[in-house]
Amino acid sequence: MTGNAYYGPDRHGPYELFNIGTLALEDGGELRDCRLAVATHGKLNAAKDNAILVPTWYSGTSKIIEQVYVGAGRALDPAKYFIVVVNQIGGGLSTSPHNAAGAASGAHFPKVRIGDDVRAQHRLLTETFGIDRLALVVGGSMGAQQTYEWAVRYPEMVLRAAPIAGTAKNTEHDFLFTETLVEAITTDPGFDGGDYATPDAVAAGLKRHAKLWTVMGWSTEFFRAGRYKAFGFDSMQAFVDGFMTGYFAPMDPNDLLAMAWKWQRGDVSRHAGGDLAAALGRITAKTFVMPISHDMFFAPEDCFVEQRLIAGSEYRPIHSIDGHLALFGTDADALAQIDAHLQALLATPV
Amino acid sequence: MTGNAYYGPDRHGPYELFNIGTLALEDGGELRDCRLAVATHGKLNAAKDNAILVPTWYSGTSKIIEQVYVGAGRALDPAKYFIVVVNQIGGGLSTSPHNAAGAASGAHFPKVRIGDDVRAQHRLLTETFGIDRLALVVGGSMGAQQTYEWAVRYPEMVLRAAPIAGTAKNTEHDFLFTETLVEAITTDPGFDGGDYATPDAVAAGLKRHAKLWTVMGWSTEFFRAGRYKAFGFDSMQAFVDGFMTGYFAPMDPNDLLAMAWKWQRGDVSRHAGGDLAAALGRITAKTFVMPISHDMFFAPEDCFVEQRLIAGSEYRPIHSIDGHLALFGTDADALAQIDAHLQALLATPV
Repeated sequence: MTGNAYYGPDRHGPYELFNIGTLALEDGGELRDCRLAVATHGKLNAAKDNAILVPTWYSGTSKIIEQVYVGAGRALDPAKYFIVVVNQIGGGLSTSPHNAAGAASGAHFPKVRIGDDVRAQHRLLTETFGIDRLALVVGGSMGAQQTYEWAVRYPEMVLRAAPIAGTAKNTEHDFLFTETLVEAITTDPGFDGGDYATPDAVAAGLKRHAKLWTVMGWSTEFFRAGRYKAFGFDSMQAFVDGFMTGYFAPMDPNDLLAMAWKWQRGDVSRHAGGDLAAALGRITAKTFVMPISHDMFFAPEDCFVEQRLIAGSEYRPIHSIDGHLALFGTDADALAQIDAHLQALLATPV
Repeated sequence: MTGNAYYGPDRHGPYELFNIGTLALEDGGELRDCRLAVATHGKLNAAKDNAILVPTWYSGTSKIIEQVYVGAGRALDPAKYFIVVVNQIGGGLSTSPHNAAGAASGAHFPKVRIGDDVRAQHRLLTETFGIDRLALVVGGSMGAQQTYEWAVRYPEMVLRAAPIAGTAKNTEHDFLFTETLVEAITTDPGFDGGDYATPDAVAAGLKRHAKLWTVMGWSTEFFRAGRYKAFGFDSMQAFVDGFMTGYFAPMDPNDLLAMAWKWQRGDVSRHAGGDLAAALGRITAKTFVMPISHDMFFAPEDCFVEQRLIAGSEYRPIHSIDGHLALFGTDADALAQIDAHLQALLATPV
């Protein structure tokens, strides 16, 4: 189950692997020699107060963050900030089912929660980089789940937080949507309980998974506007086959399932006995809640009710008919909106 | 493949079966001895000008129309109108894969289009009932597709039209959503290319199909509000298992697939060489376009752009966080809105 060439530095580099040792997991078990794949941009200053942490989303790696969000003149400007992009566990570059050794390999990979990622990132930042203050934590989708977890778990360390297109407590609707993604993969006979030889054996399941992403990841207005034509596809089916299916096809099914399980259960209220308001009440970071207007599963309204529970936070929605997958950077105007909000947030004294 | 007890008068009666003879189909082939299952309410007056036609939606029958929409004091009042509810071909009561004889049986059922249903209904109404004017055609979802088809195909016959939660030309997004429903069923090994013995053999596929309906049929706000609790379920999973899965489980998979194929291809622009504006320009019926605010696949905006192409039409959206499946009658306020609009439409001189 090792050696999937997709998850290498050729496609996703440069990044560095850090072994943070044994990570005890919230749902039991542990990851030995837990490796985090980390891409950094810019330099940590002497005061060590210019660090920005960016956790990654489902199926995404540090590469798309670099390509779409980091650059000179952008909010995430390496000339000003030390930007640390940490690939989530299970995402394929950090310790994941397909690259885990021994007892944690493949289908035997233990259950990892958002909180496990955040504790792993905390260990890395404090012990390896000597960072004890983050100017900003920002992430989209599962990156937003990790952003909320950071702000609730380590409030003294997070000065600003920008969860984009994600929630602090996953909704029941989103849980069920993700379950349909999971089942698209696991019901493929080629999946074989996770003991497939290569992702190719699960190609049909991965294609169904890609179709579900197509239905829910963009929006009805995206299709009405024929937005996929702007991506170079002349029909919806060509878009499904060439873009969506092509995107997911090389990925490891067990890796995707590890992330999906984690995504379904993102929930900061675990820090307060299930009381979401109490958990969000722990946040001291200046927080901009940034849903995407046409997001079909991290819906703006679901984000809005959480924003109202965070003291001093602001609701800063992004308008885009590209829906959730505007995160991919397909809509330049959405990126400009995100940048403007992040620049305003970074300019806010805390 | 016959004898599915679900599709009988015990659950869905009373209704009457009319044999309209051989129906030549738009995509080739024919249905011999095509039977339409018809429920009527009220009496046709001497002038034969008080008839209302109600076609049915995916998986729905004349029974839910009777239970939810027809009654004294309602817009569809049997004391005033002769209400004719015609079950769509493939819906299980009219000629459908599971009850078709010989060469059209089961997986061999021919492809039936919305236009085939409407021509069959036209033959029934004109030849059997002697009706040549309809005071109103009203239907939800696939019933709306048939309503549009009626208004475009037989403009001289349709005085008023009320397509609810449906479009005149199906969208690419909706086509793809429906494809995920289809694949949930066809990828079940028990489906066996349509040659299963009973729906039980396809239970797992039907359950996945029910989950997709749960994600798309209601809305994110439906789940945030815990609306399923009002239906007597204390968790989302109990709702999925008890309500959604239970609803679809007894249905015939080939019947569902026949309807899904038809739904995907609903398109009145076929009457004008693909020119939707020209096709909708043929409508002379006073038309109220009635999407549901939180519908995730027959989205209000998709309905709005069509409404603007219909002369003298009005945009009359229904507000309900129950989304598309508010059609089931789960939201009394949505029903009141629908009734008010239909009463206004019926009161409009034409």
